[in-house]
Amino acid sequence: MVTMLEVTDVTAKGAACCAPLVKEPLGQADAEQLATTLKALADPARLRLLSIVASSDGQEACVCDLTEPIGLSQPTVSHHLKVLTEAGFLTRSKRGTWAYYRLVPESLDQVSALLVTAQSGA
Amino acid sequence: MVTMLEVTDVTAKGAACCAPLVKEPLGQADAEQLATTLKALADPARLRLLSIVASSDGQEACVCDLTEPIGLSQPTVSHHLKVLTEAGFLTRSKRGTWAYYRLVPESLDQVSALLVTAQSGA
Repeated sequence: MVTMLEVTDVTAKGAACCAPLVKEPLGQADAEQLATTLKALADPARLRLLSIVASSDGQEACVCDLTEPIGLSQPTVSHHLKVLTEAGFLTRSKRGTWAYYRLVPESLDQVSALLVTAQSGA
Repeated sequence: MVTMLEVTDVTAKGAACCAPLVKEPLGQADAEQLATTLKALADPARLRLLSIVASSDGQEACVCDLTEPIGLSQPTVSHHLKVLTEAGFLTRSKRGTWAYYRLVPESLDQVSALLVTAQSGA
């Protein structure tokens, strides 16, 4: 089976698009952008992969350590990692044989900030 | 066209399931629950509806005021509101002719707290 460690040089779309949901109604373009970002998260395998990377030392993990805990094939895992990378949640770097994925914490924090309703000092 | 103001007495699933993504790897059951919750959000029309309700006075809005700004038919709007209600983001109450939808702020805050990576005093 072909390994699918594609070079991901797609420009990260990022998650920041708009004011928090409780502040003002979202326009259509902002809503579409945020929905795309949330769809990248809204998959059990991707959430599990993201949480493994996010909770790893240095918030980075080798793809070689991501297949076994998820119980999916390497091509499937690589596909999910590509979706997360294109959505801006992970960055990918190749070192030697393996690809390493690192969390982009700002991307999760941006989504979190758009959803939160509790005013912390605001 | 039939109006679809269904009685939504489905038990809200809620969003709380697990530790924040950066704390520890998600298990499969938790990942499936969070993915289901995020899928309910990951739609442009639902995000727009939720933001209209969330930014309304009292974080509540009449379904009669939700159709026009979104530009979708009332049955479609009611379907999206039902998905948001079943996911625990809104509650529905019928007063007279109309249904009113109110934000459940804790539900958004729970999702937000699961995603955030920034430690605030932790």
